[in-house]
Amino acid sequence: MKTILTGDRPTGALHLGHYVGSIIQRLKYQNDHKLYVIVADTQVLNNDTAKGKNVNSNIVEVMKDYISCGLDPTKVTFFQQSKILELFELYTYFTNIVSLSSILRIPTIKAEKEMYGSSNMGFLNYPISQAADIVMFGTDIVPVGIDQVPVVEFTNDLIQKFNHLYSVIMFKNVVPELSSCPKLVGIDGNTKMSKSLGNAILLSDNETIVKKKVRSMYTDSGHLRISDPGKIEGNVVFSFLDIFHDSTEELKELKEHYSRGGLGDSTIKSILEQKINNVLEPIRCKRNTLSNDDMLDILATGTNKCKQIASDKMQEVRSVIFG
Amino acid sequence: MKTILTGDRPTGALHLGHYVGSIIQRLKYQNDHKLYVIVADTQVLNNDTAKGKNVNSNIVEVMKDYISCGLDPTKVTFFQQSKILELFELYTYFTNIVSLSSILRIPTIKAEKEMYGSSNMGFLNYPISQAADIVMFGTDIVPVGIDQVPVVEFTNDLIQKFNHLYSVIMFKNVVPELSSCPKLVGIDGNTKMSKSLGNAILLSDNETIVKKKVRSMYTDSGHLRISDPGKIEGNVVFSFLDIFHDSTEELKELKEHYSRGGLGDSTIKSILEQKINNVLEPIRCKRNTLSNDDMLDILATGTNKCKQIASDKMQEVRSVIFG
Repeated sequence: MKTILTGDRPTGALHLGHYVGSIIQRLKYQNDHKLYVIVADTQVLNNDTAKGKNVNSNIVEVMKDYISCGLDPTKVTFFQQSKILELFELYTYFTNIVSLSSILRIPTIKAEKEMYGSSNMGFLNYPISQAADIVMFGTDIVPVGIDQVPVVEFTNDLIQKFNHLYSVIMFKNVVPELSSCPKLVGIDGNTKMSKSLGNAILLSDNETIVKKKVRSMYTDSGHLRISDPGKIEGNVVFSFLDIFHDSTEELKELKEHYSRGGLGDSTIKSILEQKINNVLEPIRCKRNTLSNDDMLDILATGTNKCKQIASDKMQEVRSVIFG
Repeated sequence: MKTILTGDRPTGALHLGHYVGSIIQRLKYQNDHKLYVIVADTQVLNNDTAKGKNVNSNIVEVMKDYISCGLDPTKVTFFQQSKILELFELYTYFTNIVSLSSILRIPTIKAEKEMYGSSNMGFLNYPISQAADIVMFGTDIVPVGIDQVPVVEFTNDLIQKFNHLYSVIMFKNVVPELSSCPKLVGIDGNTKMSKSLGNAILLSDNETIVKKKVRSMYTDSGHLRISDPGKIEGNVVFSFLDIFHDSTEELKELKEHYSRGGLGDSTIKSILEQKINNVLEPIRCKRNTLSNDDMLDILATGTNKCKQIASDKMQEVRSVIFG
């Protein structure tokens, strides 16, 4: 059984973008893989130290999102990054075999550096820290977007260097598994759904909020009367229906009807609202049964298990470095 | 009572340069300060990962050097850096508030970077790691050479930034205390005594080795016959006698005699040999009574004490960052 590492930064409650982009995939992984889910609280600080605030409460929310979506703590190992101090240690040892120039060659680092003008050391160290997260628990596969493939390649370069330097096979190569999951746009049509952009439908949103958010969606500014022909392309409601409608046939008919005229925006929005609620209702139900303490217990159980693995692994690592 | 942090990288047995340059000072500090001595094994890897080899055995030797010189484990807290995982954690949090440019401005970093061409991330992170070592245990004073003052200033800038960012007084400013200790040249006349340069007299050297090393010292190439006048300046034996001779009056006479001629090299070398053995003999005696296990026990006791302090401190730090 292959080992998979995936996870999220606990910057806030998860939304539908996370659901279609990664959680559905994880629900499959948990049945036929050894799945580790990292709650990457340390990483939250890399771009913006202020984001650390509320991480403790965000962690509870994210755990509720996971469990209410159906991730099963008897199958999945959840762990809190900052609580495994051995991760800090391993990453520190790794820093000694990584050059600044190799960091600056990683495209996402280069791009983020240009975008945010950031060059704090935490940010530059971040691929090394991620490499430590990946290899500590014997990961075989990391699900990634196309932009993150170079980070996994960086990890493989790093562990090859380590293994070669100490003439050991301490860590094994990792395979980046490209996600085939769809990407969800924001309710404002922005290419990325994001809580901080205020364009997200949260997994914890109730029906009233979902209604309000769907009603606010952009459709086609030329579609003034119901009888007018409407555009599908760039129509946010149809972008969502592409993902959440469960009948290809019916969706095709809806699009044709909307295109030739006679189908009102409020009708397609009602349909979308229904489809989204179909997804969210069981999640909401499950969520209501979850206590904060239970979430922290689940996380602590996984974290303790990982601590033991990390502690054993670091004994091996230390004996190789300092022996 | 003020708290002082000092220590060494366990790269090998200590030598007379360490003795006059720092250990004598520490023997005074231990009586009227709270003295922490860090065995900085993690730092060993910063410039050269290969140096990690034999760190475990070097640690035992360095501890024997400390104890046999008279450092008293009932007064001094010795601790092993790599065993306090909270140091890795604190330093990682610090990396998020330190820019690459502020690192590159530190003169010792700039100089070492030019000298070794090194720019691995561990090396660049090293001042941040050192800052964590300094502040974790409430250090008031760090004894330093003049070249290391900017590293302490860097530490103070960093903790002011931390305190300001989180509106707390988590860490206090540190005072660099400039060493007034003499610097010992190598037996080859090199400005620095260093085990790796092969020009050191080790604290663990026996009489035969001391004799051999003193005999090999450069004196004055113009001083061919005993009756010839000899030079004091640049004469390695007199550089050592300046530090190890215990009578200013006698030393003055020796120099005058040597300058006007009639005093042989073998005579001044015999005197130096005697003076060095006067220092080393009690150290050798004490050393013979010390077992490896005792050294590891002393180190473990101090390390456990520091672990507890670090663990408590990090609870405060985490609540400020993630609260």
